[in-house]
Amino acid sequence: MGTVTKKDLVDRIAHQTDLKRAEVRDVIQAFLDNVINELGDGNRLEFRDFGVFEIRERAARMAQNPRTLERVPVPARKTVKFKVGRLMRQAVDTDEIEFTGIESVETSVD
Amino acid sequence: MGTVTKKDLVDRIAHQTDLKRAEVRDVIQAFLDNVINELGDGNRLEFRDFGVFEIRERAARMAQNPRTLERVPVPARKTVKFKVGRLMRQAVDTDEIEFTGIESVETSVD
Repeated sequence: MGTVTKKDLVDRIAHQTDLKRAEVRDVIQAFLDNVINELGDGNRLEFRDFGVFEIRERAARMAQNPRTLERVPVPARKTVKFKVGRLMRQAVDTDEIEFTGIESVETSVD
Repeated sequence: MGTVTKKDLVDRIAHQTDLKRAEVRDVIQAFLDNVINELGDGNRLEFRDFGVFEIRERAARMAQNPRTLERVPVPARKTVKFKVGRLMRQAVDTDEIEFTGIESVETSVD
């Protein structure tokens, strides 16, 4: 249950390939930077088996400050939703779900 | 508002660096595979400024099939939560939020 960083993966992938550590680092950094930039441009990113990054918009609404109980407007805001891909889902949750209607149940409750 | 794929980014990064397309492809694929494998091992991945991937467990519960109205058990299940990092958040939502209490409001409502 540890934390893995970019540096950990750069070291490992440099070891697994014949590339220099700096080359691997630059490719991975360029990859992450490109994902951020594409999301910033409003695009979605689809990496087969891994997952999908896409923009989700939350409407403006009123909320209450729990300290002052004051009602405050929360402006509309964009955030990023990551949808888990097939292989990643299999890796983290190998138990199969038997009931075929379960996907729609899940969706309706989320 | 298009969709960007792994191939798109491989082509772009190969163009930006002096590496061969196949080398860039292998590094990115190794990166994505490593993320999946680490999550499968129960580890979290923290990529500064980009975001954090971590396992979230949902407890077993009862749900209702919306078609048959039958109550069905939903087994405990693990999924992946992606927490948006600082740079990604800034890229997708550049509007600053003025009210300093807003973070706690957001947290309490989510």
